[in-house]
Amino acid sequence: MVSKNQIKFIQKLSQKKYRNQYGLFVVEGKKSILEFFRAGFSIHSCYTVENIPEIKNPSMLQRISFEDLSKLSFLKHPDDGVAVFYKKQPDVPSSNLIVALDDVRDPGNLGTIIRLCDWFGISDLVCSEQTVDCYNPKVVQATMGSLTRVRVSYKPLKAYLQHADRPVLAAVINGDNIYKAQLPKKAILVMGNEANGISDEVLSIVNQRVAIPRFGEIQKAESLNVATSTAILLSELSR
Amino acid sequence: MVSKNQIKFIQKLSQKKYRNQYGLFVVEGKKSILEFFRAGFSIHSCYTVENIPEIKNPSMLQRISFEDLSKLSFLKHPDDGVAVFYKKQPDVPSSNLIVALDDVRDPGNLGTIIRLCDWFGISDLVCSEQTVDCYNPKVVQATMGSLTRVRVSYKPLKAYLQHADRPVLAAVINGDNIYKAQLPKKAILVMGNEANGISDEVLSIVNQRVAIPRFGEIQKAESLNVATSTAILLSELSR
Repeated sequence: MVSKNQIKFIQKLSQKKYRNQYGLFVVEGKKSILEFFRAGFSIHSCYTVENIPEIKNPSMLQRISFEDLSKLSFLKHPDDGVAVFYKKQPDVPSSNLIVALDDVRDPGNLGTIIRLCDWFGISDLVCSEQTVDCYNPKVVQATMGSLTRVRVSYKPLKAYLQHADRPVLAAVINGDNIYKAQLPKKAILVMGNEANGISDEVLSIVNQRVAIPRFGEIQKAESLNVATSTAILLSELSR
Repeated sequence: MVSKNQIKFIQKLSQKKYRNQYGLFVVEGKKSILEFFRAGFSIHSCYTVENIPEIKNPSMLQRISFEDLSKLSFLKHPDDGVAVFYKKQPDVPSSNLIVALDDVRDPGNLGTIIRLCDWFGISDLVCSEQTVDCYNPKVVQATMGSLTRVRVSYKPLKAYLQHADRPVLAAVINGDNIYKAQLPKKAILVMGNEANGISDEVLSIVNQRVAIPRFGEIQKAESLNVATSTAILLSELSR
């Protein structure tokens, strides 16, 4: 049985202000829960339909019915467990490439970008303060555990970039063709908001503007999604 | 005012069997509606909160309130219109690269892949019969109009690939490093299902297996999403 207070507490954690107040966030699904646990994140509480033998402290773990799980879960189709973890920054060595986001708002996009950073061995993702919170349950879900291996921080972006120790690249529509441009190995790649791109304030301090050229002859696609653009740019910068 | 029958009819079109029966599909948002209209797709009916002066046949167009629109719309946050169009294959010249999908099930992934094909000038996307329907409202939404410029067809995939006039590449975990492999300019790139990858049946007739190498030193991301993988592979095949 889960109590009304337990349900209420977890529901609160769908909101950024409570996640910040308590320093906690929610992870769903045994596979992801184990990934955070193994990466050294401390469990606050954990509700699962099956036992997880690896998690040995029984006071943190509670077996519940699938019906109760669906009361706790943020998912339309609940997985097999919900856990609350204490926030923690992964301790990973710095990489040459860093990604910065200027107001990316969609949780799915942020989750995909964190997963991409993980794949390309990027240690740091620096986000403007208006970028969606990386502990948002939809983001955590979309990262598939990659949040345990990428440091995500929130900063006033312009000030951060002004003091950067490496060149700042910005992905824009009319930038240098990334397949032809000379690209630095050590750099910060800035990606912009889904609708408005990178703000003028941030653009004003960029060292190089890059773009993915459009192929296709006749009529043309208007744009690529920010997550797929990031995929292509990271591939090109890393190859 | 929209009638109950009109609402019922549009709701039916969320189902593939009715879309096939009537040869119709739904497009939401004035911008996308105009894109399909300008691309020569015939309108069956159109409901908007504002006039669209470009669409001149008044019998097809109906001004409705936002309240009525939300009864017709499949979206949580309805846009400014809903239109029903007759299905049609875009008439585009064949490209050297073709993408084939082996049971991609997520509408967002298919939509993103159609948009990527458009960006990279790929004329044809060939889908296995179990791949999600490209006229699914969520797919149409995610393509942002790219469905007007990419021919999407559904075929028994193995038979199609067996008779292909160009080499067949498959994206797999342990394939040739795409940054080092010799890649053909004229090819079919096969991408697999979100959970299971490419089926053995299809893999058995593939000419070359390719993979995006993982960077990152310590712990490692398990996989990339099928849409972001397609982005990176198409970039590498096109550059």
